[in-house]
Amino acid sequence: MKNAIRPRRNIKLTVAYDGSGYHGFQRQANALTVQQVLEEKLSGLLQEPVVVAGAARTDAGVHAYGQVVGLHTAAAIPADRIPPALRGMLPCDIAVLDAIEMPENFHARFSAVGKLYSYQILNSEKQDPIRCRYHWQVERALNVENMQIALGMLVGEHHFGAFQAAGSTAMNPVRTLYKAVCEGDGVQLSFHFFGNGFLYHMVRNIVGTVVDVGTGKISLADFRIIFEGQDRKKAGPTAPPQGLYLQEVFYEKP
Amino acid sequence: MKNAIRPRRNIKLTVAYDGSGYHGFQRQANALTVQQVLEEKLSGLLQEPVVVAGAARTDAGVHAYGQVVGLHTAAAIPADRIPPALRGMLPCDIAVLDAIEMPENFHARFSAVGKLYSYQILNSEKQDPIRCRYHWQVERALNVENMQIALGMLVGEHHFGAFQAAGSTAMNPVRTLYKAVCEGDGVQLSFHFFGNGFLYHMVRNIVGTVVDVGTGKISLADFRIIFEGQDRKKAGPTAPPQGLYLQEVFYEKP
Repeated sequence: MKNAIRPRRNIKLTVAYDGSGYHGFQRQANALTVQQVLEEKLSGLLQEPVVVAGAARTDAGVHAYGQVVGLHTAAAIPADRIPPALRGMLPCDIAVLDAIEMPENFHARFSAVGKLYSYQILNSEKQDPIRCRYHWQVERALNVENMQIALGMLVGEHHFGAFQAAGSTAMNPVRTLYKAVCEGDGVQLSFHFFGNGFLYHMVRNIVGTVVDVGTGKISLADFRIIFEGQDRKKAGPTAPPQGLYLQEVFYEKP
Repeated sequence: MKNAIRPRRNIKLTVAYDGSGYHGFQRQANALTVQQVLEEKLSGLLQEPVVVAGAARTDAGVHAYGQVVGLHTAAAIPADRIPPALRGMLPCDIAVLDAIEMPENFHARFSAVGKLYSYQILNSEKQDPIRCRYHWQVERALNVENMQIALGMLVGEHHFGAFQAAGSTAMNPVRTLYKAVCEGDGVQLSFHFFGNGFLYHMVRNIVGTVVDVGTGKISLADFRIIFEGQDRKKAGPTAPPQGLYLQEVFYEKP
């Protein structure tokens, strides 16, 4: 009851995690998730039940350097005391990097105006078992120049139906990509995608299809037809989760 | 019985693994180990019960780029077919990089004449949860120059009793270190130890004590006294396992 007369504050956390030990971000009934761990530790710290909202629902195995998580609390702890206090409570594969107090109308997911994802490929026949949960290994040679051309077609405001998760139909599958590139040294290949929003599995479906362009399985002309055809069934496979990193979530300045 | 008349061959495997998902290399009754996984997959491939011998018994969480594993088999498969055949059978965090047939007197552990270990430290206050199982994070500033001087004292043939695991007493705690260095860019710090053999926990005990030199907790003069005193109880703590990598095992040319 001591908190009953305190105003509830709206706190924004920036969270990094290794997704390899979790069944994704979002809470599930019978599997360990990042949300569950965060809520348990935050509830302990703030001495009240805490429910968090994540900006993105990353899948099992997907990593984050800059997931954003919102929570409301009546606790009086200064926001900047939260990250160091959680540090000793959280496992080493989850870190709260930053906490700030936000206006009441801020929402981690609905206020987001942009997200930056990266995707890491190891393009090599040689295995690297010590990195296997942090990239997708593609053994076949890749034509990176053609992959860059394919990615260039995606930049701008488009209907991304060809790259949304099979079976899912977003109310509005139109998104704007500000940036879609890949770069590398011939072995490590990094994709970067910056857009105003992403459909479920959109980055992984783009990467899977662009890799098919890189191997020559799909021509650039066919890639354009697939993209413009807006039909998921024509596109390439979904790239595996462990190469995907949520790098940053962007909001308008308050 | 079909194998009964075939000579048993002696095969040497070079194995890399991410130790974070295993309770060490050596088989245990109730915990998953690298040895168990290797023996199960090799038994399936070779169609006979396989027992392997590892060059080093890496602890839970310790990684290997070049563990060496020996096995005897009556199966006829050419040695160089074993790595590609196992590739589809093993989980992604264990890879058999190489297999060659050896003379009958070769033994992965007892024939070894040298081992190269590395140890990785992240010297930063900033957490990196996506790498937390692959280094030891040390937040305090480290005087690397003093650490290098301390490591230099260890090179040569010495009694390493100060750095053997507490409670263990090797028959002969004299080992020769050919190389003991650390180098880095101020954030990533890499140790390299090359010696003719290592006592149990020796690398991790050296690193833990040398880090105490780096923080100033132990002076260089005291480090020498600790080392020459051969008493484990005087030395620093055991560095955690996840920073340790078995890089390579050396044998005399056959």
